[in-house]
Amino acid sequence: MGTILFDKVALIGIGLIGSSIARDLKDLGLAREIVVSTRSAETLKRAEELSLGTRYTLSAADAAADADLVIVSVPVGASESVAKQIADHLKPGAIVTDVGSTKASVIAQMAPHIPQGVHFIAGHPLAGTEKSGPDAGFEGLFRGRWCILTPLPGTDEGALAKLRFFWEALGSRVDLMDPEHHDKVLAIVSHLPHIIAYNIVGTADDLEAVTQSEVIKYSASGFRDFTRLAASDPTMWRDVCLHNKDAILEMLSRFSEDLAYLQRAIRWGEGDKLFELFSRTREVRRSIIEAGQDVDVPDFGRHALDKKN
Amino acid sequence: MGTILFDKVALIGIGLIGSSIARDLKDLGLAREIVVSTRSAETLKRAEELSLGTRYTLSAADAAADADLVIVSVPVGASESVAKQIADHLKPGAIVTDVGSTKASVIAQMAPHIPQGVHFIAGHPLAGTEKSGPDAGFEGLFRGRWCILTPLPGTDEGALAKLRFFWEALGSRVDLMDPEHHDKVLAIVSHLPHIIAYNIVGTADDLEAVTQSEVIKYSASGFRDFTRLAASDPTMWRDVCLHNKDAILEMLSRFSEDLAYLQRAIRWGEGDKLFELFSRTREVRRSIIEAGQDVDVPDFGRHALDKKN
Repeated sequence: MGTILFDKVALIGIGLIGSSIARDLKDLGLAREIVVSTRSAETLKRAEELSLGTRYTLSAADAAADADLVIVSVPVGASESVAKQIADHLKPGAIVTDVGSTKASVIAQMAPHIPQGVHFIAGHPLAGTEKSGPDAGFEGLFRGRWCILTPLPGTDEGALAKLRFFWEALGSRVDLMDPEHHDKVLAIVSHLPHIIAYNIVGTADDLEAVTQSEVIKYSASGFRDFTRLAASDPTMWRDVCLHNKDAILEMLSRFSEDLAYLQRAIRWGEGDKLFELFSRTREVRRSIIEAGQDVDVPDFGRHALDKKN
Repeated sequence: MGTILFDKVALIGIGLIGSSIARDLKDLGLAREIVVSTRSAETLKRAEELSLGTRYTLSAADAAADADLVIVSVPVGASESVAKQIADHLKPGAIVTDVGSTKASVIAQMAPHIPQGVHFIAGHPLAGTEKSGPDAGFEGLFRGRWCILTPLPGTDEGALAKLRFFWEALGSRVDLMDPEHHDKVLAIVSHLPHIIAYNIVGTADDLEAVTQSEVIKYSASGFRDFTRLAASDPTMWRDVCLHNKDAILEMLSRFSEDLAYLQRAIRWGEGDKLFELFSRTREVRRSIIEAGQDVDVPDFGRHALDKKN
């Protein structure tokens, strides 16, 4: 239906992100051939059942051979292994990209293995849900979402333009960023929120004074919001923590410092300090809604759906 | 339309909760007379414009006079002041209740002022959104939600049954709980999540390395979830922090301890510890969905609404 952008696209990894790309590629008719590769035979079978590609293989090397665009969508800790597997099979002029949540580490893992004449441009579509696996993906996941590309000095302009055009065809808005800056930005807007969410759910899970069934029963009072992020893919998030360590530790330390200040204000009954913070944060929400980055309905619009319970 | 449960209901405070009760009372025809009282002339005028009651007054005493049911829906720090204002005007046999998020403190503030022969039963409907004020309320807010009542030893069984029946008429499920235990449970399922959300939004707001506009622009990556809770009413939450201090400080200290453990695991690259936690928390989400306490759609079902942006 659409314009063919790439003759052959190789999707290495076919989880939430990979399978959403596959669905869009197919839906928009952007590629003649879509080769799906994953190291799990079970997942590969499922991808085939879902008709996510035109060919399926357990070998990343096989998938990458002759591909015009290779998209690596694996936990960031597996990046180097994938790069090594595909390196000798990439054709000159091919574009290799990824979708990982950390960029400096992915570049450090992959770039050294990519041969001369192949264009490696790391990227990160800021899209997803708390679900994972090939069944979790869907058409239009990237529509209206940002995709950050982190080209290195010397990156081929033509290849960059082509990759940008690809993400725009999927409905994304594309930003270019320095990899280290990307990692700092994502540490605060994504990594810290996930870590905090995992942590509070863990704390609640461990209490003795309040039973687990009480935590679950009364979770609608605020707690359940955190459980969504804390239901995200454990392997993906373990790798994010390990591969954006410095930025995450910096943000965590600022968060803890601020929390100690708040804790002290609570202990000493300093209502004015609490009120000041609680008012200021309201403005941030307002800005996010004004920027079109969240829905402007109470409770994420969840209330209507809730009533079915 | 429905059965009249109370001849005259006095609503003291007409914010999100008070005004939602008003709407349900009217919609279900549960009261002959609904007297609305608030100390702000502006809010009272708005309540009248919205036709939330049958009579409007700036005097809590005036509203409470001759009422069969008095519902106090004010920030918990204002409980004692309200109790003092209404004490001499309550009629024998009247039921006085509240909707505050802390219970031991509200009881300590109010009970000593309530005259003999008046039934004081503290309560807490676990319902709400991040919005506040009389415009934020809506019919059916309490439907399918828990309402916790914390009667004291010696509470009149008939009055308790009547109050329970009232909340059930609004669609709530009612639980009875010891006030101190309520405060511990809410500290983890509600107070800590709000405090953590306020804190992380404050931390992000204060960064130098990442601009505020970047935080807003890329907030869909996780951060925006926290901004919803952090947009809640500052006065209400200041008071909750000050009036459930002990339970909140205990939960905060456990949270911080757990976070330090996580931080150390990140620093030392202990992926197995991270993976163990991140897997365990996924189960909690599953239990919440199985218990019907959250919607079973990715991203709170927000994705469809998002696409309008």
